[in-house]
Amino acid sequence: MEFAEVVRRRRMCRGYRDEDISDEVLQSILDLGLRFPSAGHTQPQELIVVRDPAIREELGRAAFGQMFLAEAPVVIAVVSDTRRSARRYGERGAGFYSIVDGAFASLLLLLAAVDRGLGAAFVAAFDDEQVSAVLGLPRHVRPIGLIPVGYCADRPHGLSRRAPGEIVHHERYPG
Amino acid sequence: MEFAEVVRRRRMCRGYRDEDISDEVLQSILDLGLRFPSAGHTQPQELIVVRDPAIREELGRAAFGQMFLAEAPVVIAVVSDTRRSARRYGERGAGFYSIVDGAFASLLLLLAAVDRGLGAAFVAAFDDEQVSAVLGLPRHVRPIGLIPVGYCADRPHGLSRRAPGEIVHHERYPG
Repeated sequence: MEFAEVVRRRRMCRGYRDEDISDEVLQSILDLGLRFPSAGHTQPQELIVVRDPAIREELGRAAFGQMFLAEAPVVIAVVSDTRRSARRYGERGAGFYSIVDGAFASLLLLLAAVDRGLGAAFVAAFDDEQVSAVLGLPRHVRPIGLIPVGYCADRPHGLSRRAPGEIVHHERYPG
Repeated sequence: MEFAEVVRRRRMCRGYRDEDISDEVLQSILDLGLRFPSAGHTQPQELIVVRDPAIREELGRAAFGQMFLAEAPVVIAVVSDTRRSARRYGERGAGFYSIVDGAFASLLLLLAAVDRGLGAAFVAAFDDEQVSAVLGLPRHVRPIGLIPVGYCADRPHGLSRRAPGEIVHHERYPG
């Protein structure tokens, strides 16, 4: 699909059809998702592909009961190995770049899902400790987002956006 | 351009031709860049479009002398109004979601530049205080990244990526 069309179609999907996605489609999404940028090419990002329904349900509970996570046939957890960021950039690496990098990988996955005709969402409202326990993350690996991927069943929300003039400034911040 | 092609072509460009970009091309990049997702649709992201050469140079100095920033005819500073995130999500909003959201807007801009045949880069290694002073940011507005945009003059770096098997795990984190 044309890039601009993918960007225009992307939205957070919060309901999924009871329909699996093939390994081939999933792989094509992962292939693009792996082309994330990262600070100084440190590549802290890792992905945990969850198909197991029991684990998806546990993730829904760890996300304060957002059980639509478990509806999707696949949840991709994006995590960052903060050691890779900290080794090169210290505290700014662990506390800032590793988050930015995880977000980069997440948005690529969201867009890649749309490109393949699927829906996806980005969920970051969760209990870090609980998600880490469910996924068996070591202390140095931080969960950034949970991305359900599947055939979307919900309707567009029609959320309104801030006016461009509020968001785009020129030369310096106004005021 | 096809989405997959945009993703494959994207790389950090660290040298720019001495050639301006038209307002029309810049606007088309901004139009796509403004379609960022954000936590709970809080939309903390704002963009400062810098064409002024003196300000671009100051940004290069604030980025520890990364003067290639000033070579590009345009630098887009992505900032997050942390108040918008904090109002709804408290500390997690200000310290985590506002960074994720800024990264989302940044990657959209990087990809949109490629879609229009331009090069771009994401620079986050800078002195926050200095960047804030140069751009006149209030305390609650946090700089996330500086994105030079222009016609790319440098060569592909040929950086190697971690093997997919190191990055993609199944069901749970290994080990």
